[in-house]
Amino acid sequence: MSENKKLVEAITPINEDFTQWYTDICLKAELVDYSTVKGFVILRPYGYAIWENIMHLMDARFKATGHENVSMPLLIPESLLQKEKDHVEGFAPEVAWVTMGGSEQLEDRLCVRPTSETLFCDHFAHVLHSYRDLPMKYNQWCSVVRWEKTTRPFLRSREFLWQEGHTIHETAEEAIAETERQLEEYADFCEKDLCIPVLKGKKTEKEKFAGAEATYSIEAMMHDGKALQSGTSHYFGDGFSRAFGVQFAGRDNTLQYPFQTSWGASTRLIGAIIMTHGDDEGLILPPAVAPIQVVIVPVAAHKPGVLEKAEELREKLAKFVRVKVDGSDNSPGWKFAQWEMKGVPLRLEVGPKDIEKEQCVLVRRDTREKSFVKWDELETAVPALLDALAKNLYGRAAENRAKRTWTATTMDEVQKLAAGENGYIKTMWCGDLACEEMMKEKAGLTSRNMPFEQEKLSDVCPCCGKPARTMVVWGKAY
Amino acid sequence: MSENKKLVEAITPINEDFTQWYTDICLKAELVDYSTVKGFVILRPYGYAIWENIMHLMDARFKATGHENVSMPLLIPESLLQKEKDHVEGFAPEVAWVTMGGSEQLEDRLCVRPTSETLFCDHFAHVLHSYRDLPMKYNQWCSVVRWEKTTRPFLRSREFLWQEGHTIHETAEEAIAETERQLEEYADFCEKDLCIPVLKGKKTEKEKFAGAEATYSIEAMMHDGKALQSGTSHYFGDGFSRAFGVQFAGRDNTLQYPFQTSWGASTRLIGAIIMTHGDDEGLILPPAVAPIQVVIVPVAAHKPGVLEKAEELREKLAKFVRVKVDGSDNSPGWKFAQWEMKGVPLRLEVGPKDIEKEQCVLVRRDTREKSFVKWDELETAVPALLDALAKNLYGRAAENRAKRTWTATTMDEVQKLAAGENGYIKTMWCGDLACEEMMKEKAGLTSRNMPFEQEKLSDVCPCCGKPARTMVVWGKAY
Repeated sequence: MSENKKLVEAITPINEDFTQWYTDICLKAELVDYSTVKGFVILRPYGYAIWENIMHLMDARFKATGHENVSMPLLIPESLLQKEKDHVEGFAPEVAWVTMGGSEQLEDRLCVRPTSETLFCDHFAHVLHSYRDLPMKYNQWCSVVRWEKTTRPFLRSREFLWQEGHTIHETAEEAIAETERQLEEYADFCEKDLCIPVLKGKKTEKEKFAGAEATYSIEAMMHDGKALQSGTSHYFGDGFSRAFGVQFAGRDNTLQYPFQTSWGASTRLIGAIIMTHGDDEGLILPPAVAPIQVVIVPVAAHKPGVLEKAEELREKLAKFVRVKVDGSDNSPGWKFAQWEMKGVPLRLEVGPKDIEKEQCVLVRRDTREKSFVKWDELETAVPALLDALAKNLYGRAAENRAKRTWTATTMDEVQKLAAGENGYIKTMWCGDLACEEMMKEKAGLTSRNMPFEQEKLSDVCPCCGKPARTMVVWGKAY
Repeated sequence: MSENKKLVEAITPINEDFTQWYTDICLKAELVDYSTVKGFVILRPYGYAIWENIMHLMDARFKATGHENVSMPLLIPESLLQKEKDHVEGFAPEVAWVTMGGSEQLEDRLCVRPTSETLFCDHFAHVLHSYRDLPMKYNQWCSVVRWEKTTRPFLRSREFLWQEGHTIHETAEEAIAETERQLEEYADFCEKDLCIPVLKGKKTEKEKFAGAEATYSIEAMMHDGKALQSGTSHYFGDGFSRAFGVQFAGRDNTLQYPFQTSWGASTRLIGAIIMTHGDDEGLILPPAVAPIQVVIVPVAAHKPGVLEKAEELREKLAKFVRVKVDGSDNSPGWKFAQWEMKGVPLRLEVGPKDIEKEQCVLVRRDTREKSFVKWDELETAVPALLDALAKNLYGRAAENRAKRTWTATTMDEVQKLAAGENGYIKTMWCGDLACEEMMKEKAGLTSRNMPFEQEKLSDVCPCCGKPARTMVVWGKAY
């Protein structure tokens, strides 16, 4: 087992240096490789396969609620980007500019899309005619570029993969309902499929998307108590429609401006999975998105019949799970460590002694619990174990979050809590930007969101003592 | 039926102006919209849904043969692009250059990928260690940018969606086998799923990919007799490996350079579908990639029970085909024309008289043939009709190609044929570039490829009279 040990030693322990542990997992689980292009990462087959599963599940949800996929241009003319004032101010400082096509200097510079509201509006203006065309509910899967200064795989990089939904509606009510529905969709996906509990709420004015009337977010708490914004949904009112001249003939035959939404989630979700569920042995993948849900490791593979049985069990399992036999030359110990590093939810071991008893050994990645299971019981045992693992992942994450969530009613309490372990600090708030900035200055905290589920913790804002308007969850964030 | 007529009149007849007919279909079947960015098109929901079906089918083929998907950066540093001399010469004149990130001027310009050989090589150099890691068989689905001067939707645009496969192998033989296998895969996909017969062969030196040792192509003949290169597969030898320092420890423990391939197919395939199968009524989609395979049009929809029956039949059909009910307010005639324009393979009509007889009417898009089918026979009748339609599409295309394929043994014959209708002209060839250029000059023809299935038409090259080395198929191409 020396090889096994060696492999495990190569990861930094999670509670020693969380940042280094994270980087170690990204590389050793073969999720990414750094590229020659600063701030751009390569998604390797195992990392991309997780993203494929995420895309597949989310896409099915979007289609089931009547959204259609499209493909918009990669590049946005500067003149188009400038049409909505707040939007260009928010994004212009962080875009990449194409200034030459072939050998010709471009008159109107083109930016590589950081997001595509402007392109969608331009298209809506062409194709929207009457209220009968509404709603238009579009989505696209693509990559976007934002010229970040400091980058980390999945969390913040100059290019990232994502989906961006863009919809227009006849009334403000319908658009607001869409904004909320898509946030609920993200939350449900994170909780059911990724086993990550999330906090749903509205962003403050300071933290909202450039050009939006309102931004909603889901926030996930990582193992170290820091927050990760994991999906956002924006309501634009008719601001972009007016800026881009998007109009339709209404039911009363007058020209009207539609109401708009957009919503996005990205490969950041893979960062959330790593930092929510991982441990000292490596990644732990939620079964719904694991590229391999069960890895079969033959024990004493040279003994007659072992490899054949492993293959036979693979065929049996392939009918209902994603399964792989590791038939390589490595020792079983090395394989155990390798597949634990890669976060495969269940390991199935089968050797000569098991064959005698017509059984195999199933080992859960999260608890390392072993079960001896008869071959003819695998069809019920495997899904049941995967299900139990998913529930446990969710439960552990919810427990970590509960343990790290505190309330405070005075600035003094806030500062004391913020000086301790990372986590969520709930307080009331008057709604003033000055107080939000004070939280950053005095306690190093930023507002995560104003949760939909509000509580009344006190009557006044802990910063200024003025009457409180809303409860805010504060934290440190990635 | 006046609306019906009006809609159909809006398309240019196919034999009057093929170019305008093509553009009309792209727009009226709602496949694309032009964007504000010159040379960039928007894929609208219906166009993108065809691409999704193509991706789904091709991706399954790639995975079944052991290829894995990855994601590479969008941008390539100029210094990296320059490492392989022929490659940079071929692509540098037609790339878009990013020269600024945020407000900072970049020292090393970045080009938007026109293709990703250089990025894959850079990555292979990081992750390849031993012959045990080989082969590495990767693919990515993405968009690429080439700064074309004249553009047309699907055929030639500044940005297009595609897949690019990139593999490295231990030996030249294995890499060549992969190059050929992937070409066969493309050919099989085009013929079985898109119902398009293709010509498989090797490109001449003049027409091969920048940096490749050999390029293979599949060529499809359009309705007007012009050729469309519809997929290419390249063998690189170890040229890129040497240029990028990609090495592995071989079986004999010496450092060796792997042998490389790449292969790509793009949204151009949608152009091929339009121009191979379409007619005066619009698009005709091969069933395998049609977003809607059967459209149900209720007749006399206001009569009691009609809409309910349409919905009931939809549910029944949804188990085995992609089906939609058109329950809109438009007249049946308008709907017939609309769904013919969009190329839906089968139309199902159901009205009060059909309900009395427990039947419905099925109308094929290709032949407009009507069948009266009992409800309980739909499960066999619908797949049989789709299958017959697919076979007929293939047959018609093969017939057009046969009718437009000629052989010539003298330059005089070549010129006479080239002055007539478009099509393929087969001749022998000595292999000299000068003669290839003469074919362009004197007859306006370019070499499509040197077919795998060679014939011996004569002993000498029709251009120079020197001994012939190979048979070439010439034509005019998109």
